[in-house]
Amino acid sequence: MAEKIALTLSNRIRKSPYYKSTKRYGASAFSIYNHMLMPVAYEGPVADYWNLVNNVTIWDVAGERQVEISGSDSYRFVEFITPRDLSELKVGQGKYAIITDENGGIINDPIILRLEEKRFWLSIADSDVLLWTKGLARGLGWDVNIHEPDVSPLAIQGPNNLPLMNDLFGSWVNDIKYFFFKETELNGIPLIVQRSGWSKQGGFELYLMDGARGDELWDLIMQAGMKYGIKPASPNNIERIESGLFSWGNDMNIESNPLELPFEKFCQLDKNADYISRDALKKIALEGVKNKVVGLIIDGDSFVGGCENPWKIYSNNSICGKLTSAAYSPRLKLNIAFATVDVNVSSLGEKLTVETPWGLREATVSRIPFI
Amino acid sequence: MAEKIALTLSNRIRKSPYYKSTKRYGASAFSIYNHMLMPVAYEGPVADYWNLVNNVTIWDVAGERQVEISGSDSYRFVEFITPRDLSELKVGQGKYAIITDENGGIINDPIILRLEEKRFWLSIADSDVLLWTKGLARGLGWDVNIHEPDVSPLAIQGPNNLPLMNDLFGSWVNDIKYFFFKETELNGIPLIVQRSGWSKQGGFELYLMDGARGDELWDLIMQAGMKYGIKPASPNNIERIESGLFSWGNDMNIESNPLELPFEKFCQLDKNADYISRDALKKIALEGVKNKVVGLIIDGDSFVGGCENPWKIYSNNSICGKLTSAAYSPRLKLNIAFATVDVNVSSLGEKLTVETPWGLREATVSRIPFI
Repeated sequence: MAEKIALTLSNRIRKSPYYKSTKRYGASAFSIYNHMLMPVAYEGPVADYWNLVNNVTIWDVAGERQVEISGSDSYRFVEFITPRDLSELKVGQGKYAIITDENGGIINDPIILRLEEKRFWLSIADSDVLLWTKGLARGLGWDVNIHEPDVSPLAIQGPNNLPLMNDLFGSWVNDIKYFFFKETELNGIPLIVQRSGWSKQGGFELYLMDGARGDELWDLIMQAGMKYGIKPASPNNIERIESGLFSWGNDMNIESNPLELPFEKFCQLDKNADYISRDALKKIALEGVKNKVVGLIIDGDSFVGGCENPWKIYSNNSICGKLTSAAYSPRLKLNIAFATVDVNVSSLGEKLTVETPWGLREATVSRIPFI
Repeated sequence: MAEKIALTLSNRIRKSPYYKSTKRYGASAFSIYNHMLMPVAYEGPVADYWNLVNNVTIWDVAGERQVEISGSDSYRFVEFITPRDLSELKVGQGKYAIITDENGGIINDPIILRLEEKRFWLSIADSDVLLWTKGLARGLGWDVNIHEPDVSPLAIQGPNNLPLMNDLFGSWVNDIKYFFFKETELNGIPLIVQRSGWSKQGGFELYLMDGARGDELWDLIMQAGMKYGIKPASPNNIERIESGLFSWGNDMNIESNPLELPFEKFCQLDKNADYISRDALKKIALEGVKNKVVGLIIDGDSFVGGCENPWKIYSNNSICGKLTSAAYSPRLKLNIAFATVDVNVSSLGEKLTVETPWGLREATVSRIPFI
C-alpha cells in the first residue's frame, strides 16, 4: 500500500506558487488537485502526522483553487447551488457548504467566503466547480461573473499556530473566529487570513493573492516559524480521518447526496432561498436514504498506508458497501476508516466484514469523529 | 527535464480498467487525466516513439472519459456547445469539435460521436466537461440527460494496425472511414470500434463498455499482437507535436479561443444552428485575434524531455508569448514546439528567442504539422 507512482510533468499539470519551496523543503510525494501538484508527504505520513498534531506545520494547499462569483445575482446564485442557508453569512465570514446538482449529487464541498455583499469565493475540493458554475450561470442567464482568480492558499496548522501567527501578523488574529477572515498583507504581499484549515489541530489559511510571491511568503513563514520548530506538512490522511473530515472524490462524489453524510447542520432543506436540489433532497429525505457514510474501526494488524481503491464490505456474506478511506491511528492505536454502507447496516456497533488487501477483517460501525 | 515526481495514490485518483495490465507490461510513468491514472511511458519516450512510428502499439487511454448526452434536446445541445457545424454528423460517425463557453474560451476539444439520432458521446480531453454540460443544461432547462457511462477507450496505433485489427475483428474494419465507428464485441466483450486515435500513425480506438473486462481485452489484443511485435505505448509527446496535435491544458485552455489555433475547418461561425459562442467569436473574427498558436523550430542542442512550465518567448527583447509544448524530433532531427505568440510575430519565418531551461535559443515560426 501507499504505493508511489512516477508522475511525468507537463504544462497541463499546474505548479503551485509554492512548488519550488516544497521541493526545496523535501516534499517526497505529491497528489494532483484541481490540475495542480499538491505535496502530500515530507518525512512520511506518520512523521508528518506527529509534526502536525504536536506542533505547527506549513502546508501548500494552493490546489484548493478559488472560484470567484460576483455580479448583481451573485448572492442569489450561491444560495441556489447549496442546501445550506447562507442568509446569515456576513461579509468577512466563510461557511462550509455542500454544492449539489439538481439530483442532490455532490459537486463539491467548498468553504464559501463572502468578500463583499455581492462577491464570493468558493475554496474548492478537487472538481472543476468553475466549469459547473459557469455552465449553470450561463444557462440560467443570471447576472454573475465567474472566474478563477490568482489566489493560492497556504495553511498554518497545528496546536502551536497562534504564537507564530502573532509574530507574523500581530495579536489581532487571536480575535478571528472560525472561518472568519480579514484582508491584510505581509511585507507587502497581499493576503486574506482566515481561521481555517483541513485539520482539527487549529490554524489559519493564508490566501496569497499574488502567485509571483509564493516562495517569498513561504520563506517569511519558515523564518518566523524556526523558533517554534515549524515543519513542512500537508493535508494528512491519518489526522483527517481521526477528525472526521471527509474528502470529496474519496468519501463522496456526484453519486452521493448530502443526506447520506453527517451533514445535517449544512442542510436546511426548508431554507427561504431557492436552491437547485430542493425537490430532490426533500424527496430523498421523505423516502429515506439508501446509504450512509459511517466510521469503521477495523480489527487486526495496523494498516500500512491508506485505501487506494474502494474495499468491499460484507454483512452476512453479502456486499453491503465500500470502504473509501482508511488509516492506522497512532494516537488511538486503531485502524479507522470511512465507508459508505447500506442504511440497514449503518447503526453504531454494527459488525461488518471488510475485504482489505491483507484479507478479510472484522469491523465495527463507530462514531465520527474518532478522536 | 522530464522530471518524475512520486505520486501518492488514493481513491480520488481513479484507476483505469487496464491499470493492472499497464503495470504488468512495465508502465514506467503516468499522468493524471480526468482524475484517472494514464500511463505515458514504458521503455521511455523515445523508445516508445519508435515503437509507435515503426510498428503497432496498444495504449490505455481510458482517461479519455465519455460524456453521454441524450434526450429530445440532445442534438440541439451538442450544436449549442460548439462552433462546428454538426448538421451532417451521421449516426455512426464522430467529429472533432471545439467546445467553447460564451466568451469563445475553449472548455475542451473532444471527438463527438453520434450513437443514435438523439444520443451522443463526447470523448474528452482533461477537463470536467461533465460538470460544465450538466450545469449548462440544467440552467437552460433543456430536455437532456447527461452522465458519464462505463466506457474506457483503448487505442491501437501505428502503421501496422490493420493486420492486427483484421485478425481481431475481420476485414470489415478496413472499410471504416476516419472517425466512423461500429458497435461490436470481442469474445463477448462489448465494444465500439472507431477509426481514431491521438497520433497520425493510423489506428483505432476500442471503446470498452464494461469496465470489469479491461484486463481481458488487453490480453486478447496482446496475444493477437505478438506476431506483429506489438508494444505497449501511450499518447506520445514527440509524435503528437510532429503531427500537429494540440493538447488541451497545454496548448489551449479556457483563456484561448479557437480562432487563435489552426482550427478553421472546425469553426463554421455562420452555421445555422444556434451556439453559445457565436457573438463572441464573430466579434473576435471581426476585430482580429491578438494571439496565434504557431509551430517553432528551435536552434541548438537536442531537447531532453518536454516543456513542464511555459517558456517565455521574446521578440526584440520584449516578451511576445509563451512556448507550451516542446520535443526533439528524432525523425526531423530538430527541436520542435508549439507556442502562443502575439499575432504580429506569428508569420511563417519570423525569428524569435525562446528562454529554455538551458538558456536563450533562436527560434523560427514554422508550419504545422512539422512532418
